[in-house]
Amino acid sequence: MPDTMAAACMAPDVMSANCPSRHVLKHVTSRWGVLVLIALRGETLRYSALRRRIDGVSERMLALTLQNLEADGFVLRRALDAVPPHVEYSLTETGDAVSSKVADLACWIEDNLHLIPSVQGSDRGIGASD
Amino acid sequence: MPDTMAAACMAPDVMSANCPSRHVLKHVTSRWGVLVLIALRGETLRYSALRRRIDGVSERMLALTLQNLEADGFVLRRALDAVPPHVEYSLTETGDAVSSKVADLACWIEDNLHLIPSVQGSDRGIGASD
Repeated sequence: MPDTMAAACMAPDVMSANCPSRHVLKHVTSRWGVLVLIALRGETLRYSALRRRIDGVSERMLALTLQNLEADGFVLRRALDAVPPHVEYSLTETGDAVSSKVADLACWIEDNLHLIPSVQGSDRGIGASD
Repeated sequence: MPDTMAAACMAPDVMSANCPSRHVLKHVTSRWGVLVLIALRGETLRYSALRRRIDGVSERMLALTLQNLEADGFVLRRALDAVPPHVEYSLTETGDAVSSKVADLACWIEDNLHLIPSVQGSDRGIGASD
């Protein structure tokens, strides 16, 4: 009776430590969750391509992140019957919806980076996008 | 010459491990950063009120999160000359802008929680908002 369970949390509130919405928020805003959701926007990618796209992610963390997002129903994993094994990932309908919110946030940061003092005052700003 | 430094990152890209935009994204989407930005929307709060508002945050993590968000120019810290010491926090103009993106994301999750299978299949859904 999944509907009954969901109904028990009548007013989801991320401020409440035990509300399931906080757990979902945590997956979506995890260090790599954010980037996976953005990387898969409008794309179906193999694991290796996804890993190349997300600079700096380890095999282990990418696998764990994909598992969480798959369990939340945001990412679809498709294993094709091929040699060598071929697994590809894409966004589900809800994944696409949540991803658009995450992408909005990331775009805002990219577009407004010049307004952020910690960047201006740091040498991380120098040639960082090379 | 902060403008020169910012200009060096011509096309900020969160997918790039060294781009400053990734560091800012990390602060904004950190476990507690998200919740601080939401809690301060339209509010000026004292440290203790903020801590009460964000269920489960420790003193140490709240202080650290506020420091990061202050360094990014999203949060304004105001120490009033009073006994006992009175420190209050609010959002800056850029903090308000980034916070609206974060709040959009959190609201989407709260509103669509019933669509998320990991919540439906978990007993975290039962009475979680009590």
